[in-house]
Amino acid sequence: MTLAPSLDLNLDFDAENPVEVRRAIREGRFTGFTNHVARRFVQGNLVAVPESHADAFELYCRSNPQALPLLGRSEPGSRAIPALAADLDIARDTGGYMVFRDGELVDTPRDASPMWRDDLVAFVLGCSFSFESILQSHGVHLRHLAEGNVSAMYQTNHMTTPVGPFAGQLVVSMRALSPTDAIKATLLSARYPQFHGAPVSLGLPQDLGIADLADSYGGHGLTELRPNELPVFWACGATGQNAVRNAKLPLCITHYKAHMVVTDVPLPKD
Amino acid sequence: MTLAPSLDLNLDFDAENPVEVRRAIREGRFTGFTNHVARRFVQGNLVAVPESHADAFELYCRSNPQALPLLGRSEPGSRAIPALAADLDIARDTGGYMVFRDGELVDTPRDASPMWRDDLVAFVLGCSFSFESILQSHGVHLRHLAEGNVSAMYQTNHMTTPVGPFAGQLVVSMRALSPTDAIKATLLSARYPQFHGAPVSLGLPQDLGIADLADSYGGHGLTELRPNELPVFWACGATGQNAVRNAKLPLCITHYKAHMVVTDVPLPKD
Repeated sequence: MTLAPSLDLNLDFDAENPVEVRRAIREGRFTGFTNHVARRFVQGNLVAVPESHADAFELYCRSNPQALPLLGRSEPGSRAIPALAADLDIARDTGGYMVFRDGELVDTPRDASPMWRDDLVAFVLGCSFSFESILQSHGVHLRHLAEGNVSAMYQTNHMTTPVGPFAGQLVVSMRALSPTDAIKATLLSARYPQFHGAPVSLGLPQDLGIADLADSYGGHGLTELRPNELPVFWACGATGQNAVRNAKLPLCITHYKAHMVVTDVPLPKD
Repeated sequence: MTLAPSLDLNLDFDAENPVEVRRAIREGRFTGFTNHVARRFVQGNLVAVPESHADAFELYCRSNPQALPLLGRSEPGSRAIPALAADLDIARDTGGYMVFRDGELVDTPRDASPMWRDDLVAFVLGCSFSFESILQSHGVHLRHLAEGNVSAMYQTNHMTTPVGPFAGQLVVSMRALSPTDAIKATLLSARYPQFHGAPVSLGLPQDLGIADLADSYGGHGLTELRPNELPVFWACGATGQNAVRNAKLPLCITHYKAHMVVTDVPLPKD
């Protein structure tokens, strides 16, 4: 599957209602990035691993909470996480999946239910789309959203704290912000550790081992800065994809980039 | 008078005790920057104006609180502010003063008591030396302090909110920080609005109209960045000196740079 902006002009459902968004995704009526829909509700990264590795993966998340803030965990084999949404079918509701076998990406289906297994445990991890909504509501200008884009992501040279087979580099997301907005975004995002908290770096890409901002993870996202913009980097849930790939598990299923788990949990009010 | 680092090796008093520091200053035994002494106690900027302009100046401070956070105000003609220190003699205890007449700097004495007037009202305003101590206690590396220096200051192109005759450009202080420390310093300093709060800008000097970091206000301070450092800018109490100069008052007395009012008020614990 390929990424496409989701600024469709003719949506046939209420794009701010998470129940309707999930139904539209499940029925193939919405295939876009989820950062433009259900903006007042928490969204999350998906990582599903075999039960045999689930406790180690949870500990890996808890050991790297800025990148992998744990929002929910399913029972083995269950595709429901009732605490996040009553009708959630985690194998169908993101509308885009990556299937890894022995660490290799083997498929990117829209529906993961055909390869879901009874021993899979699904983890939902906090996502920057949630704090982006909060930043916008406080007047921070997110140009990548105005341009119908996603934030660029980068592999860094910062290593996560390893747990069992789970290890690897920190992945970050980047937003191009004015200095004033960079300060405001730092202060705001720090209040939400469940959505990655404060930035991990800003201003100097080389601080994270990023040699060229144009060389983004997967080639996606807004990567060009304007003269009045700083790159601001937050820890990113894609760090978990790195780790499960490195762990070479027999099976692992994650969401496909920018196709997140849309929950019924409202964003915190402030 | 000229500025000199205060990292004296042979101080004959307890440099962490504000009562002893003030006595040593008053008796001419200490003439250095106060950012290296009494580091667990609040320090402040001094601006003394004639009573006829005192209320307008207070309103100017309250209208520009990030630059000019009000810590204390004297009664007319009084050189004491008991709330800040029992023995304070504001006309002698900073050890360095600037005397302005009709907006012109006419003298920089160590002792301002000869020209103090019965109608002067002294204002003490929060100072970045206080948050520097807090940053250091949280592990933020302040290279200018390690090098026995002061932070550089700059005139910006941001205008303050004018009140009566008081108006002018915002002055900022700059610290060269790693990206990680810039984020940490932003989050920490934001907790202390009485010491200027969060930075006003970072990373891009041109955002404040600063064309050349080497061209600092008064020519003082650390102005050269290392490749892994960002310039981080905080609103500065020297904004008040700008304003009183612009107001062309018949008499105004301020502290001389980096020679602050040392108080007995302990820094907040956290």
